[in-house]
Amino acid sequence: MITVQKPTLLLDQERVLHNIKRMVERARDSGVRLRPHFKTHQSAEIGNWFRPFGVEAITVSSVSMARYFAKHGWQDITLAFPTNILEIEAINQLAAQIKLGLLVESVETVQFLAQHLTHPVNLWIKIDVGYGRTGVDWLNTDALDALTTAIGSAPHLSLRGILTHAGHTYKARSRSEIEVTYHDFVFKMKAAKARLEEVGAGQIEISIGDTPSCSIVNDLSDVDEIRPGNFVFYDVMQRQIGTCRETDIAVAVACPVVAKHPDQGKLVIYGGAVHLSKEALLMGEQQIFGYVALPTPQGWGSRLENAVVTNLSQEHGLISADEATLNQIQVGDIVMVLPVHSCLTANLMRKYHTLEGDIIPLGDLDAP
Amino acid sequence: MITVQKPTLLLDQERVLHNIKRMVERARDSGVRLRPHFKTHQSAEIGNWFRPFGVEAITVSSVSMARYFAKHGWQDITLAFPTNILEIEAINQLAAQIKLGLLVESVETVQFLAQHLTHPVNLWIKIDVGYGRTGVDWLNTDALDALTTAIGSAPHLSLRGILTHAGHTYKARSRSEIEVTYHDFVFKMKAAKARLEEVGAGQIEISIGDTPSCSIVNDLSDVDEIRPGNFVFYDVMQRQIGTCRETDIAVAVACPVVAKHPDQGKLVIYGGAVHLSKEALLMGEQQIFGYVALPTPQGWGSRLENAVVTNLSQEHGLISADEATLNQIQVGDIVMVLPVHSCLTANLMRKYHTLEGDIIPLGDLDAP
Repeated sequence: MITVQKPTLLLDQERVLHNIKRMVERARDSGVRLRPHFKTHQSAEIGNWFRPFGVEAITVSSVSMARYFAKHGWQDITLAFPTNILEIEAINQLAAQIKLGLLVESVETVQFLAQHLTHPVNLWIKIDVGYGRTGVDWLNTDALDALTTAIGSAPHLSLRGILTHAGHTYKARSRSEIEVTYHDFVFKMKAAKARLEEVGAGQIEISIGDTPSCSIVNDLSDVDEIRPGNFVFYDVMQRQIGTCRETDIAVAVACPVVAKHPDQGKLVIYGGAVHLSKEALLMGEQQIFGYVALPTPQGWGSRLENAVVTNLSQEHGLISADEATLNQIQVGDIVMVLPVHSCLTANLMRKYHTLEGDIIPLGDLDAP
Repeated sequence: MITVQKPTLLLDQERVLHNIKRMVERARDSGVRLRPHFKTHQSAEIGNWFRPFGVEAITVSSVSMARYFAKHGWQDITLAFPTNILEIEAINQLAAQIKLGLLVESVETVQFLAQHLTHPVNLWIKIDVGYGRTGVDWLNTDALDALTTAIGSAPHLSLRGILTHAGHTYKARSRSEIEVTYHDFVFKMKAAKARLEEVGAGQIEISIGDTPSCSIVNDLSDVDEIRPGNFVFYDVMQRQIGTCRETDIAVAVACPVVAKHPDQGKLVIYGGAVHLSKEALLMGEQQIFGYVALPTPQGWGSRLENAVVTNLSQEHGLISADEATLNQIQVGDIVMVLPVHSCLTANLMRKYHTLEGDIIPLGDLDAP
């Protein structure tokens, strides 16, 4: 066990490698391309762990992140975020160096790219299949037709496919609910694809993104590409949905216990919103910010059944626990908090400590 | 207006200086010590803006932050967080250099400090006056007596006073509700103080911390010290409570508009949970993550009455807006988001851009 004095993000490399291997095999079994989303780990070193599995294509969510991973040798990157035309200069620099995929969902952005791009890129039309965050509604044939025409007439642009993030699978509360949602949105994607091909798009691909579907659905062969990200670490949210086992969760924040109030059934930890993020979920009626486990020589043990993080302020965390649990834990001990949303926790903590004692930084995305 | 291509934290220095001046005057009018909490800005440079006003004593929330500000010349620092005994080595280094105040709420921690401290420190007993986060319940005379005795018998420890953070004022929804809460918790603090003095604590002080009380209550003379932090920037949460005017809010995140869906009354911005934090509040029935304003040559204008940030994922933000507002804003424009909780937003953004174009970094708290 490494020595911890303040909140420290621990990473179980063995679990990460297992998660990667499993997703690689799932993609291979379905005959689809795995283009993992690297926004979860934001680390060149963890990115390298994918290479022995034959992964060559990745997804990122910002121009800064694309630049960082391009600098670290990734040559095929999809920027799965509506194209930010204000960053056209950096986009052009990237397009000159790597095979770059961009997302569009309006004719205005396509026209801007047609005018300002200096190198070829692949375009993906972002489709909204029911999540309601962004993208063209799959039924909006006018918009789909107009985008196809606009892209078709621009020199540096080629339409590679349609892409969606079906984030509404995160609202599912069972595996079968995810299956149903998956089949529903794949139906919608196939309909949108058929429409585009009808109006002259040529042969295009379908790319989907959510970790729940990619973790649960056995036959993914109706799509061409999957872009899960969170699966590399998983977290309490995925565990609650049922898309991972607790023992797949590969990150935990080690937090010092700084106060104990047995009369209130409560521990106070050094570990707050600036470490874990304010992402919460409902477990029954209770809003929670993380599971609680105890450290072991190998990492951390099973979650404590009767302890949960119930409140976070900037640096304070509150753990509600029963008497037997409180009796086990003293001020000055370390408890392990499994985060609700590992992407946000990693982004806040800025570095990983492996169980072997190595330190792995997240990339400095602001570096020139 | 500075050029913005991606989410950028703008800082209105004039508003910050106004907020500092106002709080300094409020403290002076009540004859209390202002010991501002520097966790909100985490910046040596912004810290320096307090010096011309005669501020010499500050508050921080971690050993790392105490070390950072000590390195930047602050000689009188209270660490307003339950003492993390695992950091005793760094605490001893600090106690050797500066006038250090620590918080205790258990006899075990006092005994640990008595054994391991190598230099004198001031102790504050953390009191819970109803917020329910941490601290000794003000009515728990057994615990108060035991702490007084334990501190009294330790060589390097001197009991400076009792301290509370009445965070429940954040739940108030009017100025009068804050006034009532203030008078209630000050009554409790005076009762706890009387008890401690009765059992031999000598003359001790009362220190309080919440920005709502410090911003609203005109006569603070019943306490000895105030430790507000958030007031330096304020934010949407404070505005909703009524503790600041909208024009006191001194930070905003400039976010590129990347998509527009007028049929859904919605804008998509590059600006998400990794920029603003997931801190939300209820405005009526609606959960919101920020106000929306438009940039001006001087900074930003009044909030748009009919636009509000309603959803955040890692990098995406969704703004719900009416038709007239949507007609004003195009893809490629910048909108300004006033954050719900400025402390968390600043912590995520890591640097400020003043309206004059200067860049002010937050401190690297991990630096040795």
